[in-house]
Amino acid sequence: MVNAGAMSGSGNLMDFLDEPFPDVGTYEDFHTIDWLREKSRDTDRHRKITSKSKESIWEFIKSLLDAWSGWVVMLLIGLLAGTLAGVIDLAVDWMTDLKEGVCLSAFWYSHEQCCWTSNETTFEDRDKCPLWQKWSELLVNQSEGASAYILNYLMYILWALLFAFLAVSLVRVFAPYACGSGIPEIKTILSGFIIRGYLGKWTLLIKTVTLVLVVSSGLSLGKEGPLVHVACCCGNFFSSLFSKYSKNEGKRREVLSAAAAAGVSVAFGAPIGGVLFSLEEVSYYFPLKTLWRSFFAALVAAFTLRSINPFGNSRLVLFYVEYHTPWYMAELFPFILLGVFGGLWGTLFIRCNIAWCRRRKTTRLGKYPVLEVIVVTAITAIIAYPNPYTRQSTSELISELFNDCGALESSQLCDYINDPNMTRPVDDIPDRPAGVGVYTAMWQLALALIFKIVVTIFTFGMKIPSGLFIPSMAVGAIAGRMVGIGVEQLAYHHHDWIIFRNWCRPGADCVTPGLYAMVGAAACLGGVTRMTVSLVVIMFELTGGLEYIVPLMAAAVTSKWVADAFGKEGIYEAHIHLNGYPFLDVKDEFTHRTLATDVMRPRRGEPPLSVLTQDSMTVEDVETLIKETDYNGFPVVVSRDSERLIGFAQRRELILAIKNARQRQEGIVSNSIMYFTEEPPELPANSPHPLKLRRILNLSPFTVTDHTPMETVVDIFRKLGLRQCLVTRSGRLLGIITKKDVLRHMAQMANQDPESIMFN
Amino acid sequence: MVNAGAMSGSGNLMDFLDEPFPDVGTYEDFHTIDWLREKSRDTDRHRKITSKSKESIWEFIKSLLDAWSGWVVMLLIGLLAGTLAGVIDLAVDWMTDLKEGVCLSAFWYSHEQCCWTSNETTFEDRDKCPLWQKWSELLVNQSEGASAYILNYLMYILWALLFAFLAVSLVRVFAPYACGSGIPEIKTILSGFIIRGYLGKWTLLIKTVTLVLVVSSGLSLGKEGPLVHVACCCGNFFSSLFSKYSKNEGKRREVLSAAAAAGVSVAFGAPIGGVLFSLEEVSYYFPLKTLWRSFFAALVAAFTLRSINPFGNSRLVLFYVEYHTPWYMAELFPFILLGVFGGLWGTLFIRCNIAWCRRRKTTRLGKYPVLEVIVVTAITAIIAYPNPYTRQSTSELISELFNDCGALESSQLCDYINDPNMTRPVDDIPDRPAGVGVYTAMWQLALALIFKIVVTIFTFGMKIPSGLFIPSMAVGAIAGRMVGIGVEQLAYHHHDWIIFRNWCRPGADCVTPGLYAMVGAAACLGGVTRMTVSLVVIMFELTGGLEYIVPLMAAAVTSKWVADAFGKEGIYEAHIHLNGYPFLDVKDEFTHRTLATDVMRPRRGEPPLSVLTQDSMTVEDVETLIKETDYNGFPVVVSRDSERLIGFAQRRELILAIKNARQRQEGIVSNSIMYFTEEPPELPANSPHPLKLRRILNLSPFTVTDHTPMETVVDIFRKLGLRQCLVTRSGRLLGIITKKDVLRHMAQMANQDPESIMFN
Repeated sequence: MVNAGAMSGSGNLMDFLDEPFPDVGTYEDFHTIDWLREKSRDTDRHRKITSKSKESIWEFIKSLLDAWSGWVVMLLIGLLAGTLAGVIDLAVDWMTDLKEGVCLSAFWYSHEQCCWTSNETTFEDRDKCPLWQKWSELLVNQSEGASAYILNYLMYILWALLFAFLAVSLVRVFAPYACGSGIPEIKTILSGFIIRGYLGKWTLLIKTVTLVLVVSSGLSLGKEGPLVHVACCCGNFFSSLFSKYSKNEGKRREVLSAAAAAGVSVAFGAPIGGVLFSLEEVSYYFPLKTLWRSFFAALVAAFTLRSINPFGNSRLVLFYVEYHTPWYMAELFPFILLGVFGGLWGTLFIRCNIAWCRRRKTTRLGKYPVLEVIVVTAITAIIAYPNPYTRQSTSELISELFNDCGALESSQLCDYINDPNMTRPVDDIPDRPAGVGVYTAMWQLALALIFKIVVTIFTFGMKIPSGLFIPSMAVGAIAGRMVGIGVEQLAYHHHDWIIFRNWCRPGADCVTPGLYAMVGAAACLGGVTRMTVSLVVIMFELTGGLEYIVPLMAAAVTSKWVADAFGKEGIYEAHIHLNGYPFLDVKDEFTHRTLATDVMRPRRGEPPLSVLTQDSMTVEDVETLIKETDYNGFPVVVSRDSERLIGFAQRRELILAIKNARQRQEGIVSNSIMYFTEEPPELPANSPHPLKLRRILNLSPFTVTDHTPMETVVDIFRKLGLRQCLVTRSGRLLGIITKKDVLRHMAQMANQDPESIMFN
Repeated sequence: MVNAGAMSGSGNLMDFLDEPFPDVGTYEDFHTIDWLREKSRDTDRHRKITSKSKESIWEFIKSLLDAWSGWVVMLLIGLLAGTLAGVIDLAVDWMTDLKEGVCLSAFWYSHEQCCWTSNETTFEDRDKCPLWQKWSELLVNQSEGASAYILNYLMYILWALLFAFLAVSLVRVFAPYACGSGIPEIKTILSGFIIRGYLGKWTLLIKTVTLVLVVSSGLSLGKEGPLVHVACCCGNFFSSLFSKYSKNEGKRREVLSAAAAAGVSVAFGAPIGGVLFSLEEVSYYFPLKTLWRSFFAALVAAFTLRSINPFGNSRLVLFYVEYHTPWYMAELFPFILLGVFGGLWGTLFIRCNIAWCRRRKTTRLGKYPVLEVIVVTAITAIIAYPNPYTRQSTSELISELFNDCGALESSQLCDYINDPNMTRPVDDIPDRPAGVGVYTAMWQLALALIFKIVVTIFTFGMKIPSGLFIPSMAVGAIAGRMVGIGVEQLAYHHHDWIIFRNWCRPGADCVTPGLYAMVGAAACLGGVTRMTVSLVVIMFELTGGLEYIVPLMAAAVTSKWVADAFGKEGIYEAHIHLNGYPFLDVKDEFTHRTLATDVMRPRRGEPPLSVLTQDSMTVEDVETLIKETDYNGFPVVVSRDSERLIGFAQRRELILAIKNARQRQEGIVSNSIMYFTEEPPELPANSPHPLKLRRILNLSPFTVTDHTPMETVVDIFRKLGLRQCLVTRSGRLLGIITKKDVLRHMAQMANQDPESIMFN
């Protein structure tokens, strides 16, 4: 019952020659892949292996290896991503401290490592160990005083400038794709776009190195987003080792989805959150098999990172938090306020950052990327140094803000006035009045907040690797901690107020300012990225308990609603639009009442559709058509009169087939007839040898009728991953809709410039 | 540019009459819905609300309410599902203890609650409090001795029989759909099938009550699967309150997916695991919006359950576990062995259970469901009572097996010989030689294992609510604990062996038998259900730490591989096939080289396809066609000669339209011409008034060419949720492929009986 002779689905190109000519089935740079066709090709490959595996033991083993290669790739990705993340963490640690001083015993030790080896490791003296010397101590032998301060200040700025200059130069010279967070581009690539070199080996190497440099330089950026890019580069590298993945753009994207999960997993130490991030934010086609493998890759990466143990505390997570008191219903109000703040911050950041990036693209500003980086770094360093909360690295800052004030905490933020009558228990310290340190800290935090807000807008989008998870979280954490301290002091001084009376007696520990910082961080991150489930799960993995999930969720939901009210796009989608990538978002709902006939080409008044006929055009006709148009493919019809559709031929394959036939097949000349039918057409006796091209004809092109609502067409494009779709009415070919047409139509309907969609 | 006059997409039925006649757009029982059409209808509804909302403030508020209704439904589902789960837990607790005795102070207290209120609440005497009386004490005033034992034995059996009889009678009389776990049917319903009453209010009520009865009766079944059904009934109930969900079968299924997540969330106290379970196992169409809402519903449900606090320990999770020692690499070998065991158990269970269920369906056995339940209950009770590990409830058993032996543990399983020279630390007890109790326990556990394996096969599928999560986990936990104790004793007595030497010194706590039980439970559950990510995440939420995720994952992966080697179907898919539901599994890969032309109807030699012409058939012709065939719809073509496709008309809507026209429109008689075009056809002067039916015509039917590979067709059916698809060649209509045809073809290709697919 299987009609094998007629078997020539979209993936089968081999009913004529045994070996397809080279390059058939590949795509050009900046083009969109055809998911159905990739899937079909993979099934063909799989069928071949399965049928071969019955022939001999060797083939059977090969088929087993093929089946296992997916897991092997995941293992390798996990190992490499985890290792790179560990190395980056260690290097950043060392280089950040290098800005302040150097370790005498071994210059490659960071401040903390240097003082570990020192003998005086009592808790109080940990920060002052003789082996660690500030630059002023080393150079002019002064540790205090104005001149020492100025010297250290200068050294700080110099190192920052050096790191930033090195980073931007490396990116410019070796790997221009290494800049930015990479997530917008990865989203586009995963949706089926080709950007050659974006996930290449050079990008991997340069991004890893420059990431260390820029993070150490103290710029307001994080390593989390770029780590996703680095992990995807690893994924791309390993998938190129296995023909199953290297030769199939669809399968390769399954590996990349898993790699993205591994990237987030190592960035936060949150494997489940990483998988959900990949599912929710990054991936386009995410079958359940990939879910399982992503989970595996994310776990391997997390455990590799843990065995490297860069933080020296065998914790998996970036910010480990442990709170001792529950939260109370009345606290939901400040939590929701923080959510509103997060939403507003998200909106402000996206608008300002996009406006600034557009200006960079369109004005002369974009011509001096090195200068821009140097200037921003200099300003950042100059303003950051005097304030202790901006001088320290942003992850340390967040960590400090998240922390609950224990009894042994020496930080300025924990400078509360203790009741002398009270013995100090280790946990469960009651709310106390704030001391001088806390008030100073509040001022410094307020300044740090303004500084971070402004400088992050200008930093994200420069020609260096830059993530915005950490800066966003920092903004939220600062705001949250300030609100938290405010509520705490209010509750301490006014515990007879009706809102506090029920849950905040004197002597009780009722408000945890660290929790507010965490809630604020989640809200701000949510406002910028519009993540939902993955955000809450990542935060859940940080705290490790369901206890605090309700505050986090309340803030995340509020922040998303507030931000969505001002604009549906998250920062990544906004950057995708800014760059004009052909990305068909799964989350956008198309609700307009247009029909396929309104979108298809040719429009009314335009010249008719360029088609091929099945058996009446010469090679020259086709070559002229190819030269005169730049369409990616041509529908093939029975004849120009009947316009009944037979199939679809890709431009690239037509060109290759004709070139190949002219070189290899005898008797093919310019006026040879090209035919797509099974049998050659009846030709006059003296006509040249005709050229059969059935093998490059896609006999199952996708068609819709002209009355199909566009919402259905959009759905089909999204779910099946089409490149183009033909439009018919009562069996006659009317026109064609490409992915670009769909995107332009959607932009037009949303009152945006349709010409902003640049690629096909 | 919007061609509004011609706007008649699949969802728009209103281009002629303002109000569609009743019942248009609904589906018959045991039919499949058309997802694209449901989606399109929802978009129409949404558009209408959005455009109306600009008219007045009242309409704007209504549109806000509509937008919020999704969250309200989720909140209500979470609240009700959590409450029901809490009530079920409390009732089961009480009724399970009722089989053994009664509380004198208040008969509605369970054993534990009874002894809480008692004054003698020291730890050792907790089990013996005077207020709790065994039946023998109460009835004949004897607590020890053979006659007391026999009396208690009899009472145990009597109560079990009473509970089981009540349950099976209630199910038979009031709600036949309340039987089984419900998950296979819910999977089918979520994939787009209609089973009226399956999620009705009666089913909800009866399933809740009978679930308590059967779990208390001591049968080898669990409440976890049925809780998913109960939660889905809640979801169905609340979605019927909002027209957004009640009138759209597609939207309703989004709510049901979230409800399933809430069900698992309360079953295990694992909200994230619940969402992933819904995503991985149950749901079919799971957009990201639903993911977020499911998470919300799952959280609300979990917190509602926690505030009810049925276990009295304010723990959210069903089995809370805390281990004190890490695992070692060498232990991976027994863990993988447990995985193999789990896979073998899964295969054995599925094969035997399906064979037994098939026998029940086909022989006289199925005619006596009450007797069957009584007999199985009697046998279960008689065998279970003498063995303490089968007498206690299965969840208590699992809980005990998971537990690490602490210093204060009085259980038989923790009867180790202590070193008298050693002081007893609270945690971190070194490995010790097993005492007599442990050896007795091993024998009893072995017997319990055999008993559970056999009896579960016969229990699952009877006409009572029955889940198999708990029995499967029990089988695995018993096997795991036995292996764990074995490894522990081996390591204790032979710590000089090379495999133990590196990690198991004398006096160290190296093996945790409880962890083996947990790994075994995961492996067995994985073997039966073939869950992957959700299984690991549920287990992760039980232990609450990433520490033990690698052993769990190793066992889950092994178990899935071993079980898959013997057959790809999990127990739920196997039951779906057994019942012949039209379920198109997303996980099955279709790899055969067939084409659409091989599957479409009519086959070669069959009578031609029944079609309607656009303007030449009379009402009578159509009525005859409808009477003579039972197709769900008919393609409409220009004329029988050209066979050019215009659209598709649903049978149900044709019948309704003709009935309606005959009643309401004047001049419609049997030989009126029916036309589907915009303009009426030119008719002879004396012909009766024609009937315009364009509004029921779907102008955008889905078409594929006859050369389309079936793998693509299957993909399209899956991803777009089609009911049928028309097959064309060069614009001519050749045939039709329905979902049933696809399923039959897939069954045939897998060498199964294609007639087993029963519904359309």
